[in-house]
Amino acid sequence: MPLLNDILEHNTAFIENKDYQNLITTKTPNEKAVLLTCMDTRLTELLTRALGFKNGDVKVVKNAGATISHPYGSTMRSLLVAIYALGAEEIIIMGHKDCGMGNLDVDSVIDTMKNRGVSQLTLDTIEHSGIDIQRFLRGFDDVTENVRTNINKVYNHPLFDKSVPIHGLVIDPHNGALEVIQNGYEHIKQ
Amino acid sequence: MPLLNDILEHNTAFIENKDYQNLITTKTPNEKAVLLTCMDTRLTELLTRALGFKNGDVKVVKNAGATISHPYGSTMRSLLVAIYALGAEEIIIMGHKDCGMGNLDVDSVIDTMKNRGVSQLTLDTIEHSGIDIQRFLRGFDDVTENVRTNINKVYNHPLFDKSVPIHGLVIDPHNGALEVIQNGYEHIKQ
Repeated sequence: MPLLNDILEHNTAFIENKDYQNLITTKTPNEKAVLLTCMDTRLTELLTRALGFKNGDVKVVKNAGATISHPYGSTMRSLLVAIYALGAEEIIIMGHKDCGMGNLDVDSVIDTMKNRGVSQLTLDTIEHSGIDIQRFLRGFDDVTENVRTNINKVYNHPLFDKSVPIHGLVIDPHNGALEVIQNGYEHIKQ
Repeated sequence: MPLLNDILEHNTAFIENKDYQNLITTKTPNEKAVLLTCMDTRLTELLTRALGFKNGDVKVVKNAGATISHPYGSTMRSLLVAIYALGAEEIIIMGHKDCGMGNLDVDSVIDTMKNRGVSQLTLDTIEHSGIDIQRFLRGFDDVTENVRTNINKVYNHPLFDKSVPIHGLVIDPHNGALEVIQNGYEHIKQ
């Protein structure tokens, strides 16, 4: 059965069985924080369980590699809106070991694009519009360094309130164990 | 106890109790899809349960309003990497009812920034660097229209493979009920 049909069949049963009753559904978070982490499949349930968050606890922002690509893109916008409009008082930036962005072969990604129909003319046109495709797709070499880099991107953003603590963590996707890269309470501007 | 300390205490118990053993931790997804949805606190656990996804099933990208702010920002990058490097074969863009981005008062957000220390000089400098702050922070009027707008942004992106189906859904955060905005199988380019 196609994926969408699977989802809709499951959803009908979910509603009929009132399975939602077991999930807290408050709009206001119990823990006033916003968590930026990776889209990795292994973190889907593990991250809330390993950090002790329940439904309704935190805002969760996710992308490839827990990375801020553009200072005025959707990830930075999400963190700013969380802080200035939705009551978040702390930020957690959490990378993970064995991340797909940690060894991404950008040349191979571009070759795959070409094999699937993206023309050289399109790639050239993008480059000549001022976009560096290599840089856009590039991952990172070291997860700890990547967490620090993104903490600095948030901290130094012109619209950021530097009194908000930013914690840096790395999670092991095999068992959920956390490593503290930065304790944000020690770095806030008073 | 401060939030970070709470998290670390929980995590120590999580590892000691080997709670991770109940979670599947395959890097390769069972369902070859990438889901773009909102950072809303009420979707943290509800979304996987309501859609029938388990840990390891799908890549999940999240931001404020399930929105692509910039064609070369982190959200679009995540979708492209999922498709061209990590085996995703379908995209699901899922907004939700009662979204905080649906009635965001941008003037009020900017006032809050000013009250918390962002100077008028900083705001002016950003504007004169070519960034429209109002447009950057702006939400949307209608969730269905927003899902359609973002489907079109992905479909028309120069680097997108138009044979990949993009499904559009809206979820009710109170009970997880889904509404289909677009069945992606009916719109793919053969």
